[in-house]
Amino acid sequence: MVTNLTESVSPSVWHGWGDPSHARPLGAGALEFLRSTLKLTSIDAGHPPVDLADVRVGPVALEEDDLDEIRAIVGTQHVATDAVERILHAGGKSTPDLLRRRSGDALEAPDAVVFPGRTEEVGQLLSLCVRRQLAVVAFGGGTSVVGGVEPLRGRFAGVVTLDMRRMNRLLQVDPVSRTASFEAGIRGPAIEAALAPHGFTLGHFPQSHQEATLGGYVATRSAGQASTGYGRSDELVKTVHLETPAGPFDVGSLAPGTAAGPKLLDVVVGSEGTLGVITAVTVKVSPTPEDKVYGSWSFPSFAAGADAMRRLRHDGRLGDMPHVCRLSDTDETASTFKLGGWKTGLLSGYLAIRGQQTPALSLFVWEGDRRGASARMRRSARILRRAGGIPLGPAPGKSWEHGRFSGPYLRDELLTRGVYVETLETAATWGQLEPTYQSVRRAILDALEARGGAAHVQTHISHVYSDGASLYFTFLSGLEEDWLAQNARVKEAASNAIVAAGATITHHHAVGLDHAPYMGAEIGDLGIKVLAGIKNTLDPAGIMNPGKLIPTPLETQP
Amino acid sequence: MVTNLTESVSPSVWHGWGDPSHARPLGAGALEFLRSTLKLTSIDAGHPPVDLADVRVGPVALEEDDLDEIRAIVGTQHVATDAVERILHAGGKSTPDLLRRRSGDALEAPDAVVFPGRTEEVGQLLSLCVRRQLAVVAFGGGTSVVGGVEPLRGRFAGVVTLDMRRMNRLLQVDPVSRTASFEAGIRGPAIEAALAPHGFTLGHFPQSHQEATLGGYVATRSAGQASTGYGRSDELVKTVHLETPAGPFDVGSLAPGTAAGPKLLDVVVGSEGTLGVITAVTVKVSPTPEDKVYGSWSFPSFAAGADAMRRLRHDGRLGDMPHVCRLSDTDETASTFKLGGWKTGLLSGYLAIRGQQTPALSLFVWEGDRRGASARMRRSARILRRAGGIPLGPAPGKSWEHGRFSGPYLRDELLTRGVYVETLETAATWGQLEPTYQSVRRAILDALEARGGAAHVQTHISHVYSDGASLYFTFLSGLEEDWLAQNARVKEAASNAIVAAGATITHHHAVGLDHAPYMGAEIGDLGIKVLAGIKNTLDPAGIMNPGKLIPTPLETQP
Repeated sequence: MVTNLTESVSPSVWHGWGDPSHARPLGAGALEFLRSTLKLTSIDAGHPPVDLADVRVGPVALEEDDLDEIRAIVGTQHVATDAVERILHAGGKSTPDLLRRRSGDALEAPDAVVFPGRTEEVGQLLSLCVRRQLAVVAFGGGTSVVGGVEPLRGRFAGVVTLDMRRMNRLLQVDPVSRTASFEAGIRGPAIEAALAPHGFTLGHFPQSHQEATLGGYVATRSAGQASTGYGRSDELVKTVHLETPAGPFDVGSLAPGTAAGPKLLDVVVGSEGTLGVITAVTVKVSPTPEDKVYGSWSFPSFAAGADAMRRLRHDGRLGDMPHVCRLSDTDETASTFKLGGWKTGLLSGYLAIRGQQTPALSLFVWEGDRRGASARMRRSARILRRAGGIPLGPAPGKSWEHGRFSGPYLRDELLTRGVYVETLETAATWGQLEPTYQSVRRAILDALEARGGAAHVQTHISHVYSDGASLYFTFLSGLEEDWLAQNARVKEAASNAIVAAGATITHHHAVGLDHAPYMGAEIGDLGIKVLAGIKNTLDPAGIMNPGKLIPTPLETQP
Repeated sequence: MVTNLTESVSPSVWHGWGDPSHARPLGAGALEFLRSTLKLTSIDAGHPPVDLADVRVGPVALEEDDLDEIRAIVGTQHVATDAVERILHAGGKSTPDLLRRRSGDALEAPDAVVFPGRTEEVGQLLSLCVRRQLAVVAFGGGTSVVGGVEPLRGRFAGVVTLDMRRMNRLLQVDPVSRTASFEAGIRGPAIEAALAPHGFTLGHFPQSHQEATLGGYVATRSAGQASTGYGRSDELVKTVHLETPAGPFDVGSLAPGTAAGPKLLDVVVGSEGTLGVITAVTVKVSPTPEDKVYGSWSFPSFAAGADAMRRLRHDGRLGDMPHVCRLSDTDETASTFKLGGWKTGLLSGYLAIRGQQTPALSLFVWEGDRRGASARMRRSARILRRAGGIPLGPAPGKSWEHGRFSGPYLRDELLTRGVYVETLETAATWGQLEPTYQSVRRAILDALEARGGAAHVQTHISHVYSDGASLYFTFLSGLEEDWLAQNARVKEAASNAIVAAGATITHHHAVGLDHAPYMGAEIGDLGIKVLAGIKNTLDPAGIMNPGKLIPTPLETQP
């Protein structure tokens, strides 16, 4: 069974997040909060992006021969060299990515954007690119916030981006074994639409869900908002078809629990386009939940809330764990309350009376059949109350879910108003969570305020494990004139603090270009050598996504 | 905190399984069952092992210089070259391993057995072995049944076995994050003894539990009998310290859920000593269960029972899953009933009256607090009864648990009585489970009976996953004179059937020497190249466990 989805993907705006028609303007309260918190004299819309017509792209560096060969493989209509398409593929969606394009700089745009339709075409394209010494960037939703899809040329004659959007079919569903196979270019909503008639969900909802592709999930080892319940992408994937310069590579096993040596699937998962192009994926699927039950509890501090999350995982029954588990620190809770209008104002007053002057808000979603989900929530509620939680009902969880994909849209308006905003994340063991939180938060704040401006950092836990949890930092300050240096300063300070704390450089944003310098600290020199050796086997010419993942200087790549 | 365990490991007998004082003789009923089932005229004890003094070992091929250097590293008392120690390390515990040694052939014994005490000593030994061109075999419990610790020389001047038993310390427990670090030579019972005072268990109970080491678990990607509940070894391990010829390699992360590129830990897990020697491991641990609750249900057929196991996993709540899930096919159930005396005779009669003439027996163990475990069993019972199960109470589960480590001891007496017995296992998706079961069972039976003798094959499911289950085959027939050819014939037939079914060549016995020829079918030629490339990075001289895992001819190894 092959189901061809007639999915129309609304184009993502070239200088910002997603489809601009989904963006909502910042309210007066938010603007006032920003003005007072960041001590900015003005936050008017004085920094708009340049006109698209004024964006600079370099000349197409490909020979006409190259383009003819590419056209012969995929068809003329599936090869684009026009400025708009090149600008749309000039990078990902990190804040420096956007700032660069907003300023009119798309000089790093790929020479051509190719839209392959079949895995064999991808294989042929890679052979051609090896022969012609062209770098290749696989492009799914293009939502990387770590420079994962920067079309870097390195030492190559040109760079070709393969946009996978045409490869969006559901290939097979095995309802008995609960697996489904897809072409890798299918996006989050289309995955869910394809599975729904079979009664299944993938359960993978990263904030980039509406744009990102299944291949991107796998390539970046992504986690979604409900991954505490459904499992991360690396737990969901069973097999991958990877087209590599060394040939097609079917990796993974449909058979569960194989002990046949090292798990090479886990080499391809997280390989971020550096080994080949993921063209098909088989995943585990789950039955669509009948219902969702929401709950929210407030804690006297972030540490108390984190301990409650740990107890929920440790003391509760395994099956009682919510699919979504989030805990905001007191800063994030305060800003949520300030921006929430009169309702959250009342809530804030109530918590103060109950002794929580600076509360930390948690929210949970249990999925399943209604009776089961409610029973799980009731048992969990006992643990959370014993741990000092004040129950706040379902509203905060529902409100979060309603807006859960809209956060990144706010960044576009903030940048236009001269506000720098970025996010980064890590994870640590329960034992190291509080010191990691404190030191990374401090490092971000100090770096942001190093030039004298005021800053705001807020943090939440979004994923809970038996052995620890994730930490997600969102931070804002006035946009400095040299925003590139500002961004580098903050990211470097945060990354160094993460490394010093023994935490991981990334929990779900992956490595890309931005975190590559920290991979040595993360996996050791010998780990880097192992990765380089694997790359040398599958991509001996080094054409696949140069400069990403492995911190090899581009000039000296193998 | 470092806890030094004064564990005394009772020596495993050189020609059989474990400590012979634990072996119990076969009863009259068992002997009669064998005689009638296998149609053997005699099953007297006519095939005893030769005397230890008559076992042939080759000369020690090491130079005195080599031995002096080894002694300088670990201390003279920790280097053995005597025949007994060499025979004890001449291979693992597969049936052909035992038959070979029982016949007096230990010509493949290592030249020396070295007992390192610290990870630095292991590193120094590897450097020496690279310099002197000596092959190295890491030896934990030595319980491999796939030729995983055969001391093959290949093209090397000699072979040194590193017995890890001295490295048996608990290094650290983090009770908040629920992790523990151990030296890798610690054995199953010592792991549990070390964790018990902290209120934790590893929950890893393979049939080799009493002998096998933590390093061995990790090196072979092992599963234990309760892994449906606690998770397989690959799910429990967080970090590994590997001494490689290229230097020490710390792999994995204490931080949970990292997205920092490919998971190299999964390259080391399952590497079977071919990349280096695992000297320390950090694992996730679980609270010691307060109680266990046992249940058993009978089904009208293996297919019906398998479907009930699937429904238990799919329709039940996740937290309700038992830690141990086993289902015998009708052959295994019949032999269990026949060998169980009058009690199982009554049971058999009862089931016949209830319409199950050839029943398939399942058994389950739920672990946890008493109330919770009982509630989980009750909810599960509803699913199992709806699926056609007849409840048989706790006795079969308790009886299984009582004897769960004693099965392999029976083999020694069977071999002495001229009965060939071996096991192998695979796993398949739920959708492919029944055809895989039928074709592999048929292949084993046909191969066993190819020379005219009668045979018995019995099968069980021991591990249940969302997407499928394992299949474990035990088979017996008369021992042929050319037992090597007999064994090869059966293993080859079974392996080919497994490959043809699209199942995995091993669910928990690993690859070793015996399954290496099937790794191409399992992971593809490119997968083999990736593995070889990784080995070339960490072990460029190819000294580590030659001939295992990767099907490279020994003579032409890199």
